[in-house]
Formats: sequence, structure tokens, C-alpha cells
Amino acid sequence: MRLAELSERSGVPTATIKYYLRERLLPPGERITATQAEYGEEHLRRLRLVRSLIQVGRMPVATAREVLAAAEDESLSQNARMGAAVWALPQGPGPDEDDPHAARAREQVDAVLGRMGWSYGQELGDTSPAYRMLVAAIASLDRLGYPHDTEHLLVHARLAGELAIADLDLVETYDTPPERVEAVVALTVLYEPVLLSLRRLAQTEESSRRFKE
Amino acid sequence: MRLAELSERSGVPTATIKYYLRERLLPPGERITATQAEYGEEHLRRLRLVRSLIQVGRMPVATAREVLAAAEDESLSQNARMGAAVWALPQGPGPDEDDPHAARAREQVDAVLGRMGWSYGQELGDTSPAYRMLVAAIASLDRLGYPHDTEHLLVHARLAGELAIADLDLVETYDTPPERVEAVVALTVLYEPVLLSLRRLAQTEESSRRFKE
Repeated sequence: MRLAELSERSGVPTATIKYYLRERLLPPGERITATQAEYGEEHLRRLRLVRSLIQVGRMPVATAREVLAAAEDESLSQNARMGAAVWALPQGPGPDEDDPHAARAREQVDAVLGRMGWSYGQELGDTSPAYRMLVAAIASLDRLGYPHDTEHLLVHARLAGELAIADLDLVETYDTPPERVEAVVALTVLYEPVLLSLRRLAQTEESSRRFKE
Repeated sequence: MRLAELSERSGVPTATIKYYLRERLLPPGERITATQAEYGEEHLRRLRLVRSLIQVGRMPVATAREVLAAAEDESLSQNARMGAAVWALPQGPGPDEDDPHAARAREQVDAVLGRMGWSYGQELGDTSPAYRMLVAAIASLDRLGYPHDTEHLLVHARLAGELAIADLDLVETYDTPPERVEAVVALTVLYEPVLLSLRRLAQTEESSRRFKE
């Protein structure tokens, strides 16, 4: 398809597509004349992913480029590419190394991963951004004196595990490894606001049930 | 307690506490001399909540002030105060009114709320920020061509419902209504990064299980 059709099918203006091409967020089309290029389904797919990262995930272009580079690194296995791409997604701040709350939080995170049997996460440990974000989040709870006992964290972990199964089932509806890698990244980003808004709706509902006077 | 002790027990520097007092994020202590004031447990609790909002929730001072005003509006019932405070928490962007994807997303959100029996959310509808954020998130999935069928959304909604039960159980461990209102706000903010990082860890785990070659 030509640029105009790519724009129409994706809903992304042609000027924006040209910008993404210049920024190498989108691979070049196949040149057919000096001024025209042909684009394929893989361009459409990639364009959707780029929009997910930049518009919904509010990622800077440089960060989006890193995530995409990880997703398309063909020297890696499919699993490693998925992991690397989710890995490269921006996370909240990690823990402060000198913080005694972080040291305690780290022990608790290890206990949660152990209880869940998440051996991959245990192996990666502190090198994983999600692990570091979790340590920082629990350290904040501890520092501020709010409850964070392991049983309560396990409730969150078990539900996160069930979500991951449902999310990966969705990813497996995509046929090829490159589609799956792109889908896992896009769905991770796009379902975060879904989950957070549903949690707030559920809280409102539950507190209305319990405390309505 | 004096300012120095409030600082020590909260881990917040005295200069920062003075700033919060000036900004009316913290009610004044009881004056005992021209230069000294006495602070109580409610100041310590409020200080922790302010830190949760500003440091972890990265809220601007003006936004934090609105959330606090909702939490302490004594003209409201306990439930209404909890709701108002969670309500005032910053949300992601709402939907664009002219967007045909948003119109479809709104129908789908109503279907999800109906299936969940979340009548309070249905009643509030579009006036609730969490509802609007959910509509916008589903509209993005739709616009970008990613899957968002109602059954999959219901998986997220059910898990959000289970989380809300566990979270409100935690809130009920606090004895008095003002403590509970403050706890619900702090825990909503502080557990968001816990949930998002656990989801990413769970995804890495699950994709390693499925796709490891």
C-alpha cells in the first residue's frame, strides 16, 4: 500500500508517519519510484505499536526506539525478545541503594517471588526493572508506615499471575513470532490504564457497599 | 509532640513540614508559645498521606490539596468522603467527545459494569473520572486495532473486584473513619506501582514458561 492508504488504515496523519520514518521508528517502505514507496502489513502493525507507546504510553521517541530495538533483535529467541521489550518499557523509579527500607523490601520481594514459584524473576532479581520498581514501591509503604504484609502482597501477585495468563492467551491469538512480540508490548502498555481505572471503579463499588450510611 | 519529633517519626525534614504547613497541606499544630506548636497523631498520619500523594503519586501540591479537601469534607458521609477522595486522584486522560471509538467504548464499559453488577459505577457513569479513563483506554485499543472483547475486559474487572475486597479489608484494620478515609487514598496510590510491577513480573514469568525455546 502507498503512504496515503497506510495513513487511512492506521488513522495516523501522513506528516506523522513521515516523522516516524525519519526517526527510524518505522522501517522504510520498498522504494518503487524516486518519490514513492510501498508499505506492507508489517508497517501497519508497527505503526500501531509506535502509537501505543508514544500516544498512550506517553513515551519519549528515544525510549520508544529502545523498546522497538529490543522487540526486533533477531539474535534473540522469541521469549527473550518479548522479555527484552517489556523490560525496556519505562518503569517507575527504582529503590535508593542506601535506604534501609529498601533492604527490607528486597527480602520481602524475594519471599513473594519464592512463594509464587516465579523462578525466572528470582534469577533476574535486581537486574530486572520491574523487580526494582516493586522493591521501591514496597520500601515506600514501609517508610510511610502503611501495611504491606507478605500475605497481602501475595493477593496482588496471584491476581497479577491470573491476568498474565489471560493476557498471554490473547497474545497467542497472533500467528507469528514478530506479531506476538509486538502484541505483548502494545497490550502491556494499553491495558495498564484499563486495569488501574477498573481497580478504582471496583474500590468505589466496594466501599459504597461497606460504608454506605 | 514538637516539630522535631514529628520530623523524626515521619522521616520528613522539618523544612519540608514547614512548607506543607504554609501550603495548608497539613493543619496547624496547637500553639503553646509564640514560636512553638504541639502536633498530634493526626498530624503524623496526614503527613504520611501527603508524602504518599506528592512523593509516590508525583502529584502537584494543588492537586494534593484538592484530594485532601475531599477527604476531610465533614459534610459528607464516610463513604462519600472515601469516594470523593479517590475521585479527586489524578487519572489518565478522558475520551475525546467526537471520537467514534469512544462511543463504542462507552457502550462496552456499560456492558462490563452491568455484568459485574457495579450499580454505583453505572449510576455515576460519565461523571466519574475512573469511568472516563476506562472509556479512553478502551477507545485507544479500538482505534489501534488491538483486541478488547468484553470477556477479556471482564477478566480484568473480576480481578480488580477481588483486589478491591482485599484492599478494603486492609482499610478496615484502621479504627476510625478519618483514618480509614486517609488509608484508602494512600493505599490506592501506593499500591498502583506494586500492582503494575507485579503484572510485568508475572508476564515475564508466563511468557518464559510458554515461549522458552
